[in-house]
Amino acid sequence: MSETTGTPPPEVPVFDEAFRARLEELLIWRRDVRHFRTDPLAAETVMALIDSCRLAPSVGNAQPWRFVLIETPAMRARMIANFERCNEAALKGYDGEQARLYSQLKLSGMRDAPVQMAVLTDTEPAAGHGLGRQTMPETLHYSTVCAIYTMWLTARARDIGIGWVSIIDPAQVEDDLGTPASWRLTAYLCIGYPRYMDDEPELVRRDWQQRLDIRQQILRR
Amino acid sequence: MSETTGTPPPEVPVFDEAFRARLEELLIWRRDVRHFRTDPLAAETVMALIDSCRLAPSVGNAQPWRFVLIETPAMRARMIANFERCNEAALKGYDGEQARLYSQLKLSGMRDAPVQMAVLTDTEPAAGHGLGRQTMPETLHYSTVCAIYTMWLTARARDIGIGWVSIIDPAQVEDDLGTPASWRLTAYLCIGYPRYMDDEPELVRRDWQQRLDIRQQILRR
Repeated sequence: MSETTGTPPPEVPVFDEAFRARLEELLIWRRDVRHFRTDPLAAETVMALIDSCRLAPSVGNAQPWRFVLIETPAMRARMIANFERCNEAALKGYDGEQARLYSQLKLSGMRDAPVQMAVLTDTEPAAGHGLGRQTMPETLHYSTVCAIYTMWLTARARDIGIGWVSIIDPAQVEDDLGTPASWRLTAYLCIGYPRYMDDEPELVRRDWQQRLDIRQQILRR
Repeated sequence: MSETTGTPPPEVPVFDEAFRARLEELLIWRRDVRHFRTDPLAAETVMALIDSCRLAPSVGNAQPWRFVLIETPAMRARMIANFERCNEAALKGYDGEQARLYSQLKLSGMRDAPVQMAVLTDTEPAAGHGLGRQTMPETLHYSTVCAIYTMWLTARARDIGIGWVSIIDPAQVEDDLGTPASWRLTAYLCIGYPRYMDDEPELVRRDWQQRLDIRQQILRR
């Protein structure tokens, strides 16, 4: 790579139409998985998934992603209890048919997924020296989200599913895990082999929310 | 797809080792681009990039991503002025060698990139009916981040670069664009053909921040 001469290094990969079509399939078949088989994942597979996160973009190259593997039965039970409290509270916000539908949705795979991982964001990382985040400090969290999505796609390409549990009290998770004070929960992930593959969100299949026409969401200025 | 029988639909794609290697190359060569050629992008290419965002995960399937194409010279000038004010303020936060290095970094391609796009998040979307975001409303923003990263990877597979400008006053952008009150800026993107391809972050090459060992960022509980 030479910025001065503009000469590309010889090894720049060429992505062709066939790859683009496969990439689109990967994006289409990447699902938020809530139905897991209980077979364990090999430890090196879990490490490979975490390792893929280093390829995510991060603000100022701050790499603020932090990972906590939830392994003991006691800690898993606390996380499930947290989810269940929050899910019951959420159910109370719906009435009638919507409440009936909500109560039938499976919104977490926490009882089956063999790997469970809290992903947090260090809000005061030394790395990056503050670059790029003075006016939008939330970009630290956004960097962690990119890491999670990198892991999600990497997982799907290995037939592994990930489910993102957001119905959870983040402060309680941080407290239970005893993580450093500057770390905030970004996501609680369930990871394992899916019971089935799908190309449509479960919330579409169960008539909770259909896809919108994205072309209606564009303005010009 | 049948959840009841667990029978996979016949068309489930199989991703092999060759695809996984290409995917990793895509992740490696996806860069935050600040050096753009000025050649325009075809309108249908821009639409294809936006269209790829529909494949991103979103909380409750709320699809809260909103796109504003910044097209007029007057509006582009306002955005550049916003960046320059914020960048000057950020420079004042550094001293000595770090200030010298910061001042030499190219942190935006706003003067060259043919396509410029603000991506916002509707914080009160009707879609999704509030599902999944009662305790962590920030997951709406995280959904938009996943959309941006989907577009970023889709772009790179077409040899198109994206640069995420976060050194910008988001409230001023929203005010300048006159976007609805419930929309918050998530990212300002520069999009176009890169002047060169690279497999390392510019902030690594310029010795601002090296890569960390991600395996040091894992706890177990």
